[in-house]
Amino acid sequence: MASPADVEQKYTLITRNLQEVLGGDSIKAILTEGRRPKAYWGKTHLVGTAPTGRPHIGYFVPLTKIADFLRAGVEVKILLADVHAFLDNMKAPFDLVAHRAKYYEFVLRTVFISLGIPISKLIFVQGSDYQLSREYNLDNYRLCASVTEHDAKKAGAEVVKQIESPLLSGLLYPGLQALDEQYLGVDFQFGGVDQRKIFTFAELHLPRLGYAKRAHLMNPMVPGLAGGKMSSSDPNSKIDFLDPPEVVRKKIKFAFCEEGNITENGLLAFVKAVLIPISELRLERARGETVADESEGIVSETTRSQKPFADDDAPEGTVFTIKRNPKWGSSSHYKTYQELEDDFAEKKVHPSDLKVSVEGAIISLLEPIRSAFLASEEWQKVEKLAYPDPSAKPVQKKKKVRLCGRRVWCWCSYDFVNRRRCTTHHHRAKGRMSKATPKHPQTQPFLQKKPHLQSQEM
Amino acid sequence: MASPADVEQKYTLITRNLQEVLGGDSIKAILTEGRRPKAYWGKTHLVGTAPTGRPHIGYFVPLTKIADFLRAGVEVKILLADVHAFLDNMKAPFDLVAHRAKYYEFVLRTVFISLGIPISKLIFVQGSDYQLSREYNLDNYRLCASVTEHDAKKAGAEVVKQIESPLLSGLLYPGLQALDEQYLGVDFQFGGVDQRKIFTFAELHLPRLGYAKRAHLMNPMVPGLAGGKMSSSDPNSKIDFLDPPEVVRKKIKFAFCEEGNITENGLLAFVKAVLIPISELRLERARGETVADESEGIVSETTRSQKPFADDDAPEGTVFTIKRNPKWGSSSHYKTYQELEDDFAEKKVHPSDLKVSVEGAIISLLEPIRSAFLASEEWQKVEKLAYPDPSAKPVQKKKKVRLCGRRVWCWCSYDFVNRRRCTTHHHRAKGRMSKATPKHPQTQPFLQKKPHLQSQEM
Repeated sequence: MASPADVEQKYTLITRNLQEVLGGDSIKAILTEGRRPKAYWGKTHLVGTAPTGRPHIGYFVPLTKIADFLRAGVEVKILLADVHAFLDNMKAPFDLVAHRAKYYEFVLRTVFISLGIPISKLIFVQGSDYQLSREYNLDNYRLCASVTEHDAKKAGAEVVKQIESPLLSGLLYPGLQALDEQYLGVDFQFGGVDQRKIFTFAELHLPRLGYAKRAHLMNPMVPGLAGGKMSSSDPNSKIDFLDPPEVVRKKIKFAFCEEGNITENGLLAFVKAVLIPISELRLERARGETVADESEGIVSETTRSQKPFADDDAPEGTVFTIKRNPKWGSSSHYKTYQELEDDFAEKKVHPSDLKVSVEGAIISLLEPIRSAFLASEEWQKVEKLAYPDPSAKPVQKKKKVRLCGRRVWCWCSYDFVNRRRCTTHHHRAKGRMSKATPKHPQTQPFLQKKPHLQSQEM
Repeated sequence: MASPADVEQKYTLITRNLQEVLGGDSIKAILTEGRRPKAYWGKTHLVGTAPTGRPHIGYFVPLTKIADFLRAGVEVKILLADVHAFLDNMKAPFDLVAHRAKYYEFVLRTVFISLGIPISKLIFVQGSDYQLSREYNLDNYRLCASVTEHDAKKAGAEVVKQIESPLLSGLLYPGLQALDEQYLGVDFQFGGVDQRKIFTFAELHLPRLGYAKRAHLMNPMVPGLAGGKMSSSDPNSKIDFLDPPEVVRKKIKFAFCEEGNITENGLLAFVKAVLIPISELRLERARGETVADESEGIVSETTRSQKPFADDDAPEGTVFTIKRNPKWGSSSHYKTYQELEDDFAEKKVHPSDLKVSVEGAIISLLEPIRSAFLASEEWQKVEKLAYPDPSAKPVQKKKKVRLCGRRVWCWCSYDFVNRRRCTTHHHRAKGRMSKATPKHPQTQPFLQKKPHLQSQEM
């Protein structure tokens, strides 16, 4: 039995900054028994036309929260959905997918190490480890024999694009994600609040198969740096974990950041969801608060000396500093996100100063990851295999650009299994769409707003 | 290489009496190469509340056609869909389903033996032998990632009841049946013409997965003895393979057979689809025409001496005799079905005479099957395990009768996986519905016509 104070401390760490918790009592009960809760996070995408599909720094958002789980002693399983990835793009052979899974594992593990998070209870699982087994598939059939199309569609409404005639895989998805909880043997699943209907679907249907109902912890949705939902397919939004400083600067320069606009502001969102929590983690560590996991104390000197994203001369407890061009005054120091947001709303913080400050923080976050990559021959080898150099073959040459064929709502090649967006923005950004668009006059009204075209090898 | 005449003879035998053949050329090509075509038939139902679900003599219709395949040297795989059966009724444990599969195998094998059909190339396969394998399931996912809900629904339109919100299993069914062709390694699939859309779905989608397109041979639809589609759940329609003569007589007495009505006439349909083809088989054998399969010659003296369903004094070539009550004249002998149908349409054949004649033929068909059952301790044991005596426990007592919960079209518990109808008629026939119906006033208009209610243990 754990002490009430200990339970409370761990539970607070597990659930802080979340938008919603379903079934929190079951987690408390596990903590009270002195057991280690087990969690699962599976929103990882392994496939896409290179160079999209690579993990980008938007992953810092869930990883920052997962860091809390690990520090609270939770066993965290990260599902690398290789089966889904393979299905998503049948042209991608299984071994390419395997390389990408390996690459993701390298990146995610290094992120935690660079932040000084204990990873002894971090487990990477590949979907193919169990999703093709006899038992799993029998359960999938059992689910399909009791779930109506209507219920499956409702469950996937937020994450599966609602077009007139979805693929069957989109209807299977909620059920498979529910079964994952059982087959990964976890106590709770973590995801964005966009997963809510899938989570409640699992809470309803797992018990009908005779399995336990799991708790569900939901992160708020965080827009990408470009202002929209962070996507690996939009190069303005996407900063790669391995981007060198000059590339980070260039990408941040393109980020949408309007003076006084706090609602569509990917930079502010990133400060709130990633930078300030990391600052807080560092402050806690500096105060010797290692919370729950015994191995957290054994962090390297380097990580111990990591400082919050604040100037050296900032007052104690500062979690973020806006560095200001001396022409316009001195730096501003914030102890909470709210203060920063208020200042930005009142136009006391200029977008260019916010950009410079976030840029510096991101560069310092990525530096140890890039160093680890450059120091690891194996990782470099995996990277080459997972994402072959697109400039090695002129992939765009001789390609036909066509609509993806779905008629309603949007023409993007939305991926129903992995919920990944198409490569549109990437192609547009490189100016390759312009010639092709006149071929599809019916798309013109949409192209003004959302040029969701798909480029495919024929 | 086979001779053109041999190819033609076998091909004619394989395709005769069918309503439609898709891809016949591929079968001819196989025969020309001197190879043995491989076929698959899978429309077998293993589950249902006892005593429904037992194979009934409606099975003679496909079996009579399968007899042609076997005689032409085709390797025939009969799929006992145990996985689907298990899913259909999750209350039925896997071992009950296994007993039923065994029971079906006993019955079907005995039918062929009793007709003197070579069975060395008859193979029984259980769905669980391959339908839960890694490869099969990966292919299922691949299919689901390329098939739209719309296409799956269209494919199942004839065999899956079209209700507002079908179960996911109903949408999966066409794809699974397509994969069966690949995993059973067959050259063609045989089924009723109601399977046409499922067959064309398979022809479209298997090549997309990189697999060969198979041929499809379709039997016409044959109404049950009661006049409707033959169903194992309607006791007036269903004659069990093991029914003793007095039960057969009673059931035939209840069959709908209106003077001069040739369109809704289950008895005439049975004569056409089963009795006359068997008569023809016996005539062919008497003439020494053993067609293709070398083992067909080695039939027992008993089967060799089997005669067509005609009086001893009938003219040579008679395939069916209508025995007439001497009060009303002498027997009529027919050399083709058409002659019989014409006479019935012109009211030259009275329903009671048709009934007596069909009754006699059925009793003689079932006699060797019943004898084999009574002689086999193992079969009797399997029968007890597969269909436990319903009178052993008063199943209706303390049961609640309720609507199955689907709101549109019909309230029956239509089984989307095995395409089996509910047990309604059975319950109605035993007069058990009458008390329950007033509880569901909204069903009254339907109950006049189709009292599709479901009885379930709560």
